[in-house]
Amino acid sequence: MTYCLGMKIKDGLIFMSDTRTNSGVDNVSSYKKMFTWTKNNKASITILTAGNLATTQALVSELNGRNISDNSRALELFSQPTMFQASKFVGKKLKKIIDGNSSDGLRADSSFNATIILGGQIKGGEPRIFLIYPQGNFIEVSQDNPFFQIGETKYGKPILVRGYDYEMGFSDAVKLMLLSFDSTVKANLSVGFPLDLHIYKADTFREGKIKRIEADNKYYSKISNGWSKALKAAFNSMPNFPIE
Amino acid sequence: MTYCLGMKIKDGLIFMSDTRTNSGVDNVSSYKKMFTWTKNNKASITILTAGNLATTQALVSELNGRNISDNSRALELFSQPTMFQASKFVGKKLKKIIDGNSSDGLRADSSFNATIILGGQIKGGEPRIFLIYPQGNFIEVSQDNPFFQIGETKYGKPILVRGYDYEMGFSDAVKLMLLSFDSTVKANLSVGFPLDLHIYKADTFREGKIKRIEADNKYYSKISNGWSKALKAAFNSMPNFPIE
Repeated sequence: MTYCLGMKIKDGLIFMSDTRTNSGVDNVSSYKKMFTWTKNNKASITILTAGNLATTQALVSELNGRNISDNSRALELFSQPTMFQASKFVGKKLKKIIDGNSSDGLRADSSFNATIILGGQIKGGEPRIFLIYPQGNFIEVSQDNPFFQIGETKYGKPILVRGYDYEMGFSDAVKLMLLSFDSTVKANLSVGFPLDLHIYKADTFREGKIKRIEADNKYYSKISNGWSKALKAAFNSMPNFPIE
Repeated sequence: MTYCLGMKIKDGLIFMSDTRTNSGVDNVSSYKKMFTWTKNNKASITILTAGNLATTQALVSELNGRNISDNSRALELFSQPTMFQASKFVGKKLKKIIDGNSSDGLRADSSFNATIILGGQIKGGEPRIFLIYPQGNFIEVSQDNPFFQIGETKYGKPILVRGYDYEMGFSDAVKLMLLSFDSTVKANLSVGFPLDLHIYKADTFREGKIKRIEADNKYYSKISNGWSKALKAAFNSMPNFPIE
């Protein structure tokens, strides 16, 4: 499995992904699941991937233009005029890759599946985040549903539901996302460190702060330990259940 | 779906279950998923059920001896000398019901499935909790894995992992379980109030405190609201992520 999270706040977009992949417990490795393409002063687009690794790598390679032998690789992604068009473009590519793998050779349709979070901003539009399904269609974040999770989503949802605030700053939002990842990592072996983080500031149209967070990252250790303690304290501050 | 939780602490066993069942969003209703059989000074056995409602109701009816026309219904469950034997007995019954539904008529094997948490104490033995699979086999709680969840288990796991302590009292344990249910109910519509609670005190060999907790239960409202606030406070007490 995987855990990826894309969140929209007032100031911009934040993306976080883990790096663990596995096919069975004896074949565990780390792969990047976050990819960012930037065209300075024009566009910044990030995708997060969950699902079959061969499918998502094929998608990223195609988006990088590796299927074109020409050296001049003009990224098709940047010829999309809007984020909506970019999602449509990526969704179409994704569907094609999955269909291609499913129809010939082994029948294992579902296992070629992948889900994508695509977010960013193209000049002329707002920062936007989309969730792209293996079928190629997609939905967008809204004020009512301001973040998308893919992969192992359930463990880390309660804290997001309770902590999210559209007006919160980047620093608080990253803290919230790290706590959501911490809950997930502590409960499920298929999600693991290091994590990748990308903070995109609205209207900058370039790559924002990109950081890899290792398990021994000082800040993470501090909030992971601190959170356990703070939860204990919060728990103790609640009134006891009255047993008659 | 469903959410049921059986937990062992030093002082005894605690069981909690929701009551929501649904087959599609337009067919939602409430059913009890917790059943307790007691033979005073000899045994107290509780089961929690998740899965196909027809299957679990058939199981409970059989355990109640409703398949025997005789009035004297001697509960077979109480002829089991140990909790292990009782689990084996229930597992066998469960498997038989599922097999029976699957083999004739429609083929929909998986949808007849059900999973059971069985816990309690029979004189001569310790309080024990088992998780019984649709295949009829089962596993037991251990010090390392001191509680079983069935149904929609993921949302409510992180708080259990962090808060559980074998030495905690009933009052704290119920509080912890309610917070776990609260996280689940807030994140997933297929789990809903009212909740059923059974507190079994070790070595009493009779029904313990049984309580139905409605959504407007005062204590629950207090900790549900309080928890949101306490989490916010805990969140704010964590250091901010350093954005350079």
